[in-house]
Amino acid sequence: MKLLTTMKRVLMGPGPSDVDPRVLEAMSRPTIGHLDPAFLEILNEIRKLLQYTFQTKNEMTLAMSGTGSAGMETCVVNLIEPGDSMLVCINGVFGNRMADVAQRCGAEVMTLAIEWGKIFDPEQIDQALKRKPVKVVGIVHAETSTGACQPIEEISRIVHDHGALLLVDTVTSLGGMKVDVDGWQIDACYSGSQKCLSCPPGVSPVSFSEAAMKVIENRRTKVQSWYLDLTMIRKYWGSERLYHHTAPVNMNYALLEALKMVKEEGLEKRWSRHLANYKILKAGLSAIGINYVAQQGYELPMLNAVAIPGGVDDAAVRRQLLEEFNIEIGGGLGKFKGKAWRIGLMGSASTLSNVMLFLSALEKCLVDQGYQFERGASVAAAVEQANRQK
Amino acid sequence: MKLLTTMKRVLMGPGPSDVDPRVLEAMSRPTIGHLDPAFLEILNEIRKLLQYTFQTKNEMTLAMSGTGSAGMETCVVNLIEPGDSMLVCINGVFGNRMADVAQRCGAEVMTLAIEWGKIFDPEQIDQALKRKPVKVVGIVHAETSTGACQPIEEISRIVHDHGALLLVDTVTSLGGMKVDVDGWQIDACYSGSQKCLSCPPGVSPVSFSEAAMKVIENRRTKVQSWYLDLTMIRKYWGSERLYHHTAPVNMNYALLEALKMVKEEGLEKRWSRHLANYKILKAGLSAIGINYVAQQGYELPMLNAVAIPGGVDDAAVRRQLLEEFNIEIGGGLGKFKGKAWRIGLMGSASTLSNVMLFLSALEKCLVDQGYQFERGASVAAAVEQANRQK
Repeated sequence: MKLLTTMKRVLMGPGPSDVDPRVLEAMSRPTIGHLDPAFLEILNEIRKLLQYTFQTKNEMTLAMSGTGSAGMETCVVNLIEPGDSMLVCINGVFGNRMADVAQRCGAEVMTLAIEWGKIFDPEQIDQALKRKPVKVVGIVHAETSTGACQPIEEISRIVHDHGALLLVDTVTSLGGMKVDVDGWQIDACYSGSQKCLSCPPGVSPVSFSEAAMKVIENRRTKVQSWYLDLTMIRKYWGSERLYHHTAPVNMNYALLEALKMVKEEGLEKRWSRHLANYKILKAGLSAIGINYVAQQGYELPMLNAVAIPGGVDDAAVRRQLLEEFNIEIGGGLGKFKGKAWRIGLMGSASTLSNVMLFLSALEKCLVDQGYQFERGASVAAAVEQANRQK
Repeated sequence: MKLLTTMKRVLMGPGPSDVDPRVLEAMSRPTIGHLDPAFLEILNEIRKLLQYTFQTKNEMTLAMSGTGSAGMETCVVNLIEPGDSMLVCINGVFGNRMADVAQRCGAEVMTLAIEWGKIFDPEQIDQALKRKPVKVVGIVHAETSTGACQPIEEISRIVHDHGALLLVDTVTSLGGMKVDVDGWQIDACYSGSQKCLSCPPGVSPVSFSEAAMKVIENRRTKVQSWYLDLTMIRKYWGSERLYHHTAPVNMNYALLEALKMVKEEGLEKRWSRHLANYKILKAGLSAIGINYVAQQGYELPMLNAVAIPGGVDDAAVRRQLLEEFNIEIGGGLGKFKGKAWRIGLMGSASTLSNVMLFLSALEKCLVDQGYQFERGASVAAAVEQANRQK
């Protein structure tokens, strides 16, 4: 069977991102038991490195045994009891998903929806909470479907002034731009391993403030998901080390190695790298008339959602990028299906080489599509931008 | 940091089991996208090999993105709607867990509890269903906490005569003994990757009959877990290939390779191997007076739950096995905590070498504990049994 033998892609979609060989190698170490003292040491190290990456002292910082959406569900099912009220801010697919998860959980869900790609004005959230106070406010920091970055700090102040808990989706932002859980007073947040942490998908880092944990400890009802119940999982990740479920051992090896690489590079440097490569990509795309769909000034550096130029065949270009250059980029999701491309520069994939390769490959595909522009324009603009940054 | 560098165990606990280097190597191949045509091919292959392993033609046969307990929750949350009735048969930890999961799901749960280690008489289930008909009957095929194997065929007939669906836990049995989903008319079952399939933990094979899928399609309410909602996940695993969540790509590489190894060995041969090594282990243990806690004649070949001899320090022996011999065995769970050891002979770990190594290592630990028996007795009995089997 030929499956698996030769496949190597350049992962410039919305995640998974390219995984460093160090991480792949760590993942392939022999499996040991989930209650082995040596493995419990690994969980301790992961917690410390996640605290660094999330910038938090939260004791309840760990990796859930599922992908990012399991992290979202973990936050919601643990904080919400049937009948609790929750405000969900929607400006893309993942806000929508959060509202869906909350409804399934029996929450009385209020939604605040704005145009996709736009970001929320804190005033809007203040108004909504004045109309109806809620227990939890959910919002997406980095909307992977639109490439928009939502500033959190001011919103956090408002949410807490109204006595609510703040739940933030940092799936795409963590490790690629500032995420300051303690500084921003986030009560619950979740992320994915396969975005800017550049670990394979399969585990979901989460962190909960003391206020959130107090709410969870004082629940009147059981958490509706046994698998995601933090009141039990904390006894495994905590000092008691009680068996709950069998942790995905090798996935945790990979996460540990990926987090070590984050620490070795340093968060500030890592954020700067993501920002620098984004600027070069943006200069190149601008030079051939390709524009971002996110609100100006709030574009994510790791997820470049751009409008597909008129007359260009979405699927054909993505297929050509994949088949001719082994480059994966993402198509549009939901309302943006067929209208946007999502170009990821996440973690190990955020490199100058990837930007240059992508721009020249895209030029080739667009020329093949009959798209009119000056040949070499995007690469020249990228080179100029790269030199300017030096 | 020394973590991860040198650790190699002999995994003879209740799972994870030893993982073949082929599987570890496959898992470390470069990550590709979860919507990459090459990855979707891998999912197709996994489905085919899982159908073989489960012995089913069920179209809805796939690997969930979580460990075995997520598989249990998948079966329950998809089949049960609030107020639905479910009978859960309890003779160990995992029956208890299933009842807990069902209650969290809003089911009206009836339990039928018998002594741990014993198996259910079909008549008991018939009586229970006569007293109160239910929508779903849940039962554990291989109780990992007691080492007892529950025959399913006759119970299946009774459950269906009463018009209920049959949900079976095959976490520990799949790949190590006969599991015949179609032959036994199981409607829903789940397993783990890290037991007799000898893949690292992190994915959970599940299979659903047409009758089960009809029930799921006709639900009045949404599945309470977004992450485990089969009505959405089937659109990703099916021909539509709609994005749901980011599948754990490398875990699926590992599962594919592990399933290929199952296919190459052949199910019947694999079951015989598990049975043969169990018999040798049992002969050795009997020779030094160590007895099984499961009902006689119903012991699982891959999970040997035995009573800890009087006067022997449970924790000290397990620590010595781990530190002196790198052998992991499991302690008792729940009611059997401190009273039983659980010795796994699962998948790649079910070898004559492991049996011999374990018996001689255990003898050494027991001698160190002052346990009285004829030195070399267990190994001699095992050798004799092994020769008898030739």
